[in-house]
Amino acid sequence: MEVVSENRCFDGVQGVYRHPSAETGTEMTFGLFLPEEAAFGPVPVLWYLSGLTCTHENAMVKAGAQGWAAEAGIAVVFPDTSPRGADVADDEAYDLGKGAGFYVDATERPWAPHFRMETYIIRELHDLVLAEFAVDGERQAITGHSMGGHGALTLAMRYPGRFRAVSAFAPICNPMASDWGRKQLAAYLGKDESVWAMHDAAALMAERGFDGPVLVDTGTEDANMDLLRPETLARAIAERRQQAVWRMQPGYDHSYFFVSSFMEEHIAFHAEALYA
Amino acid sequence: MEVVSENRCFDGVQGVYRHPSAETGTEMTFGLFLPEEAAFGPVPVLWYLSGLTCTHENAMVKAGAQGWAAEAGIAVVFPDTSPRGADVADDEAYDLGKGAGFYVDATERPWAPHFRMETYIIRELHDLVLAEFAVDGERQAITGHSMGGHGALTLAMRYPGRFRAVSAFAPICNPMASDWGRKQLAAYLGKDESVWAMHDAAALMAERGFDGPVLVDTGTEDANMDLLRPETLARAIAERRQQAVWRMQPGYDHSYFFVSSFMEEHIAFHAEALYA
Repeated sequence: MEVVSENRCFDGVQGVYRHPSAETGTEMTFGLFLPEEAAFGPVPVLWYLSGLTCTHENAMVKAGAQGWAAEAGIAVVFPDTSPRGADVADDEAYDLGKGAGFYVDATERPWAPHFRMETYIIRELHDLVLAEFAVDGERQAITGHSMGGHGALTLAMRYPGRFRAVSAFAPICNPMASDWGRKQLAAYLGKDESVWAMHDAAALMAERGFDGPVLVDTGTEDANMDLLRPETLARAIAERRQQAVWRMQPGYDHSYFFVSSFMEEHIAFHAEALYA
Repeated sequence: MEVVSENRCFDGVQGVYRHPSAETGTEMTFGLFLPEEAAFGPVPVLWYLSGLTCTHENAMVKAGAQGWAAEAGIAVVFPDTSPRGADVADDEAYDLGKGAGFYVDATERPWAPHFRMETYIIRELHDLVLAEFAVDGERQAITGHSMGGHGALTLAMRYPGRFRAVSAFAPICNPMASDWGRKQLAAYLGKDESVWAMHDAAALMAERGFDGPVLVDTGTEDANMDLLRPETLARAIAERRQQAVWRMQPGYDHSYFFVSSFMEEHIAFHAEALYA
């Protein structure tokens, strides 16, 4: 593992690290904020999954998470959104291929050799972060924005017991029925829609739910509302009687100005679960 | 004036606006955060001047100012750092020409026709912001980072009565004796160093000081320490008995991770002066 940069930040360290990934077959880069408390022992950790077109860097510089994470004594991991490199398959569209891994393990060509973001995050990067840094594997939570909100919700439900809490900012809730989803799930996973359902937050919520608290924020002025389909998740939450806070935030859009506005509340929500 | 974008942010609005500038002879773009309170009447305003290579956008997305400004009910203006456009003189170096206006009015060729950032900010943009938005001209303060810290300190001292408080993050303190300054002041203002002294924070502090509180933070690990020369400002502050808090922050560098770490304290510092 190579240190790309380390900057002091809110009495902790905002690092960027690069490592060869066996899962993706590429070099992968991630950000990690470690609060001051990590010098004295393992701290809880929050995974932040980013949206379409993002790298590890966007949320790290724009989401305003570090101050609140420092206050709560929580580490935050910022993974990349896809494999990178000249030999990695890509598409001309911004929402398929590089920057658009959708947090699944691709089974179809040409994506299957490198696009293994689910296992990369859940196993490989997870194990690396736990081995290399003072973070506590027993106290993990997950959040994300847009495609990363989809990733946070689906991974939280797919790996019961791994995350104590899950939240999302403007998540893609129902990719099986969205242009942010159908194309990508077909490309990465093939034509069998029953496979897609295992990566659809609304479908997973209807089928199995999450054993812990859920927090979801979406702005009422989100220009991508028809792609996000927050109503599908709300309905599944309601029908399941899932412990959850589901909010529409008046006037907010899809940008990081929205994400940063509610970051304090999301970190506090996770801290409550992580320190319970 | 044209609205480039407006995003809801911490219950207020983060806007980006474009306007033709008579001073620079170009289109100019600036950011403005207006807190919720601006809907009910004029609010105090903090000017944030950015550093080398920045546009209006860097601090707006990376400094984490809006949350604290919202809490304090203060507007924040994010001007650009230079004129832009194909017909504007430039230099191959990152620290001269576009992105490097140094907050002075150039008198020398080829810079004089467009590089008028001092008067642009102090008069033209000032008047525009006061005319178009609910901000209170009687309650203004100024801050900035690096070259923008130089701008904040020098403009605060050059325009007594305009700003109630001034702060700076890792400011260039003594450009007359720095490679971040000598080249630029010579290019923009000519060879007479007595003219340069009117745009040197340490020299202005020694000669006239500031009628109000001053806050300056610099990181002990700032790789540009020899260019910033914070000791020159500290000495001038001490010799003058200027009301000031001058801090070296252990472990911090020159990045926005440093700026964002101390933004809460800088906004609180300005709020105290603006609401006095």
